[in-house]
Amino acid sequence: MFSSGRAYSSRFASTSFAAASATSADAAAAAPAKKQKQQQQKQQQNNKGKGGGGGAAAELAVTPRSQDFSRWYLDVVREAQLADYGPVRGTMVIRPYGFGIWENVQKWLDSEFKKKGVENAYFPQLIPYSFLQKEADHVEGFAPELALVTRGGGKELEEPLVVRPTSETIVNHMFAQWVQSHRDLPLLINQWANVHRWEMRTRPFVRTLEFLWQEGHTAHATPEEARATAREFVALYERFAREAAALPVIAGRKSRIESFAGANVTFTIEAMMGDRRALQAGTSHDLGDNFARAFNTRFATATNAGSDSSSSPSPSSSPSSNLSFVHQTSWGVSTRMVGGVVMAHGDDTGLRLPPKLAPTQLVIVPILGKKGTDPAPILANAEALRDALCEAGIRARVDASEGKSPGWKFNHWEMKGVPLRVEVGPRDVAAGCCVLARRDLPRSDERSKMMGVPTSSLPGFVETVRKTLDEIQLSLLEQATVFRDEHIVDVKSYEELKQAIEDGKWARGWWCGSDEDETRVKEETGATLRCYPFEQPAEAEVNGGGGGECLMSGARAVEVAIFAKSY
Amino acid sequence: MFSSGRAYSSRFASTSFAAASATSADAAAAAPAKKQKQQQQKQQQNNKGKGGGGGAAAELAVTPRSQDFSRWYLDVVREAQLADYGPVRGTMVIRPYGFGIWENVQKWLDSEFKKKGVENAYFPQLIPYSFLQKEADHVEGFAPELALVTRGGGKELEEPLVVRPTSETIVNHMFAQWVQSHRDLPLLINQWANVHRWEMRTRPFVRTLEFLWQEGHTAHATPEEARATAREFVALYERFAREAAALPVIAGRKSRIESFAGANVTFTIEAMMGDRRALQAGTSHDLGDNFARAFNTRFATATNAGSDSSSSPSPSSSPSSNLSFVHQTSWGVSTRMVGGVVMAHGDDTGLRLPPKLAPTQLVIVPILGKKGTDPAPILANAEALRDALCEAGIRARVDASEGKSPGWKFNHWEMKGVPLRVEVGPRDVAAGCCVLARRDLPRSDERSKMMGVPTSSLPGFVETVRKTLDEIQLSLLEQATVFRDEHIVDVKSYEELKQAIEDGKWARGWWCGSDEDETRVKEETGATLRCYPFEQPAEAEVNGGGGGECLMSGARAVEVAIFAKSY
Repeated sequence: MFSSGRAYSSRFASTSFAAASATSADAAAAAPAKKQKQQQQKQQQNNKGKGGGGGAAAELAVTPRSQDFSRWYLDVVREAQLADYGPVRGTMVIRPYGFGIWENVQKWLDSEFKKKGVENAYFPQLIPYSFLQKEADHVEGFAPELALVTRGGGKELEEPLVVRPTSETIVNHMFAQWVQSHRDLPLLINQWANVHRWEMRTRPFVRTLEFLWQEGHTAHATPEEARATAREFVALYERFAREAAALPVIAGRKSRIESFAGANVTFTIEAMMGDRRALQAGTSHDLGDNFARAFNTRFATATNAGSDSSSSPSPSSSPSSNLSFVHQTSWGVSTRMVGGVVMAHGDDTGLRLPPKLAPTQLVIVPILGKKGTDPAPILANAEALRDALCEAGIRARVDASEGKSPGWKFNHWEMKGVPLRVEVGPRDVAAGCCVLARRDLPRSDERSKMMGVPTSSLPGFVETVRKTLDEIQLSLLEQATVFRDEHIVDVKSYEELKQAIEDGKWARGWWCGSDEDETRVKEETGATLRCYPFEQPAEAEVNGGGGGECLMSGARAVEVAIFAKSY
Repeated sequence: MFSSGRAYSSRFASTSFAAASATSADAAAAAPAKKQKQQQQKQQQNNKGKGGGGGAAAELAVTPRSQDFSRWYLDVVREAQLADYGPVRGTMVIRPYGFGIWENVQKWLDSEFKKKGVENAYFPQLIPYSFLQKEADHVEGFAPELALVTRGGGKELEEPLVVRPTSETIVNHMFAQWVQSHRDLPLLINQWANVHRWEMRTRPFVRTLEFLWQEGHTAHATPEEARATAREFVALYERFAREAAALPVIAGRKSRIESFAGANVTFTIEAMMGDRRALQAGTSHDLGDNFARAFNTRFATATNAGSDSSSSPSPSSSPSSNLSFVHQTSWGVSTRMVGGVVMAHGDDTGLRLPPKLAPTQLVIVPILGKKGTDPAPILANAEALRDALCEAGIRARVDASEGKSPGWKFNHWEMKGVPLRVEVGPRDVAAGCCVLARRDLPRSDERSKMMGVPTSSLPGFVETVRKTLDEIQLSLLEQATVFRDEHIVDVKSYEELKQAIEDGKWARGWWCGSDEDETRVKEETGATLRCYPFEQPAEAEVNGGGGGECLMSGARAVEVAIFAKSY
C-alpha cells in the first residue's frame, strides 16, 4: 500500500514530476519553467511555420499515447493546462482547467451525499501525534509518510503535530464527545479537504504529496449497519464512475494486505487505464469498532437488553453498564479521479473528457472565411448559439480569438478534450445550419462529423446538442468497457496468471491463497490483488455455487480475485 | 494587525476557547468534553423538570447577550452546534450547522466571482520558507505566526516548509511561469483553502489557528487596472455583506499601519458587532508590483512604447527590453464571516440568521394537540407544506421529533436562529391555515406572529413565505443599520474621540495624523483606525470640499477616518 523508501534513488529519477526538491526549490523550479517557456515558443514557431493552417500543430504538443503512455500523460497534463509542478517536490498546482473537472466531480458527489442525509463539516488539519498512536495498525500504516509541524508561532512545539493524512483519529476524538445516545446515531459527516502523504514516487493527480478529496465518516449502532453503509458508498462511487466519469470500474473487496490501515474491510473501485494498469479510484472502509475502542466512542443503547458490548444485561442503573461502542465507516474519492479520467479516455491527440465532467462541453469555432467577408453576422450567430446553449445549462463557449486559424483551434480544443465542436462559416449562417464534430470518435470515422445540422430553430439545436452529448457520454463508457473486457483474462494457474500479467492484462481467477502467496505474486510479477469483485461467476459460493480451484494452491476457493499491475 | 506575544499570559487565560494545549491534548481535551456532556445532561434535566412544557428551557442554555456578550457568544456557538473546540489549542471543528452557513457564503461569492471571469484553482499548501523572505514586508509581517513543517516521510527536511498563512508567494512563483505576454493578462484566479496563523488569542470563527477562506489573486498590465480591481472586489464584498449577510458594513481604505504585509493599499469592510466592536470582515489588497518584483513576474508589452518599466523605449529587439512587471491584487473573505453574522444579529435568546445564509430558513412544528388526537393528518399537512417549499427552493424542514413539547421546539429553533417558524395544529389543518412566527422581531412585538395564514393554496402559501423571508432579510439589515448609525459619533478633537471610545462607540473625525499619532490612539484608547471610509462628508476633498481640521493635529485633513475597538 505504501511505496518503499528503497525504491527512491533508482525510480525517482525516472519520473519527471520531480520539479524541485524542497531544499533547493528556487534553482530547481526555475529550470522547468524556462523549459516550458521554450517549448511554448517552439510550439508557436511550429504553428507559424505551418502558416497557421492548422493540421498537426497542436498534435505536436503531446507525445502520441501509443508511443509512450507515461510521456503522453505528462504532456497532456501540461499542455491542456490541467496541472503544473509545485515548488516542493511531489506537489502540484491544479490549474483552472483541471480544477474545473474536479469541481464537476465535487458537485455530483456532494449532491448525492446530501440526498443520503450526509452533512458537511470541517475538522482541524493539525492532529496531535499521540492521536495516531492510539490505533496500532493506523499509526503503523501512516507513520512512514507523515508531514510533521514541529514549530509554531516562533517556538518549538512540545508535541509534534501531524498534517492530516486522513482524519479518522480527530473525527473520533470529536465523535466521542458528540455521541451520547442511540438517538445521536447514525452520524453521517463528510468533509472536503486537503491531505498530505509524503510519497516518494509521484505523478500529477495520481499520487501527489498533497491532494484534495472528500472523506466521509459515519457512526452506527450496529456492525451490520456500518457494513451496509460502507457497501452503500462504494456502490455510489461505482455509479459516479460509470454515470459521470464514463469509467466501467470493477467494484469489490480488498484483500487483507491491501486494506486501509485500521479497517476491518476495505471496498474499492478499480479502473483500467489506457495502458491497462489498474487505478484504485475510490475506497470505502468498514472500520468496525477499531477507532471507537481507541477513542472510547460509545453510546447509550435503547435498552439494556439490546446492548452488544455489555456482557451483563442486568437492570443496573450504572451509567456505563449500557454503553456500546459505535461501528464506523469512512470513504473517499480524491483528485486522483481527474488523472483516472485522463488516462482512461485520452487518445494520441490528447484528452477526451466525458461531457458530464468537462469544464467546457462544447466549443463554437467561427470560420470567418476569405478576407473581405464581414465577420459580424458569423460572430453574432456563434454567440446566439452559445447563449441558447448556456441558458439550457450546457457549458458552451465561443473561441473567437484572433491570429489563430480554425485548424489550429480544432486541434487545440481536441487536445483539451472538449466533447463537441460547432463550426459556423458564412455559408452555414446563410443556410441556417452548422457542422458538429464529436471528440469521442476518431476523425477517420465519418460519424465524427455531422454536416448541415439545423440552427434556425434554437430549441431544436439545443436538443440536438443535448442528445449528442448524451451519446458521447455513453460512447466513451462503451469504448472503455470494450477495452476493459478485452484485457481481463480468466486464469486457472499461476503460470497463466504470470503470462496474463506479462501480456499487460488483468488476471481473474479462483483465489484462496495466503498473505504470503499474495506477496509472492506481487514480488514475482509486479501485480497486486486489486479486489475480489462483487460480481462473481455463477460457480462462486456467493452465487450458490461450489466455488473453484485456487489458481495458486489448488484448494477450494469460494470466490475469484483480480490481479493487475497498478498505479 | 498581529497580536503581540506579550499579551499571551495575561489575556489568554481569559478566553475559554483554549480547550487544550498541543502539548497535552488528551488530558486537557477530555475536560471540556465531559463538561459539555454534563451541561447537556443538566439541560435535559431542566427540560424534564419543566415537564417538557417549553418556556425558558432553551433560553437557559445561553447566557443572555445583554448580560455578558463574550460568554453569550461562546454559549451560542456551542449550543447552536456551530463549532466545537479542536484538540490543538486555538483550532476549531466547524460542525454541520456552522458549515451550512459557510456553504451559503461560498455559493454566493463563488457564483459572483465566476460572473467576473475569475477561475478557481488550487496551489500547494506547503511553501519553501525562502519564498516568504523574498518580499521583505511580507516575511516581517507573517514570520511571528507561522507553522513550520520540518519533518516529512520520516526525515528532517533541509529547508523548513511554511504551512501557508496566505498564498501570494507561491502564486507569484506560478504566475511568473504562466504570464508571458500581455495576452495572458488579466489573470483572475481564486482558491478556496485552509490557512494557518499561529495566533495567541483565539475565538471561534473570529480568530482561529486554522481557518477557511477564499483568496483571489489577479495580475494586470497596468497599476490603474490593479487598483480598479482591488476596488471592484471590496465593492463586491460590501454588496455580499449587505445583501446576503444583512451587515451594513463600512467599506474603506486601511491606514498604512493596518495594511496587509506586502500591499500598497488595503481596502476593507468593517462590520459593527452587537457589543459595538468592529470586525474586519473582508479585505482586498492592491499589491502593486511588490510581489512581481520579488518573483520576477513579467510580461511582454504590446508595444515597446507602451512599456512603463522600461526606461529606454528603444526599438531594441532584446527580449528583456520590453518586459514589464505585472500589477497585482489579492482579496479574501473567511469563516470569520460566520462569527460576524452571529455577533451582529444575535439577541438574548440566541442566533438570528439572515434567510439568505441560514442553513434552515423555515422550520415547521406540528402541534399534535391533546392525547387521542390523530397525528397523521397534521404530520401529512406539515410534510406537504415542506415539500411545496423545498420544491420552490426554500430550505424548509419539519421537526416531528418525539418526546419534546412544541414550546421546547420553539425555543430550540429560535436559539438556532431559524428565520421563520410555521406552527400547524389540528384546528389549523381543519381551517386550511397556519401560524407564522418571525425570528427577527421580539416575541413582544405583535407583528412577530401571524395567525390564520392560509395554506389551502400551496402556491399562495409559498409566495407568502418567500415574501416574509425577504422582509426578514431586510428587517435584519435595517435593525443593524439603525444600531450602527446610533453608535458612530462625529468627533472634533482627541478628547472627544477618547470619550466616544470610552462610551463604546465608533469615532469618526478628520484625520491626517502620523503613524505615531495613530499608534498613540491605539495605546491610549485601545481603538484602532478601522478605515478611511469611501463615503466621505461633503466637505472632504474627494467630494470637492476643502477638508477639515485633523482631530489630533489641527492641520488640514482631506478625509475622515473611523476609530473603534475591534476583534
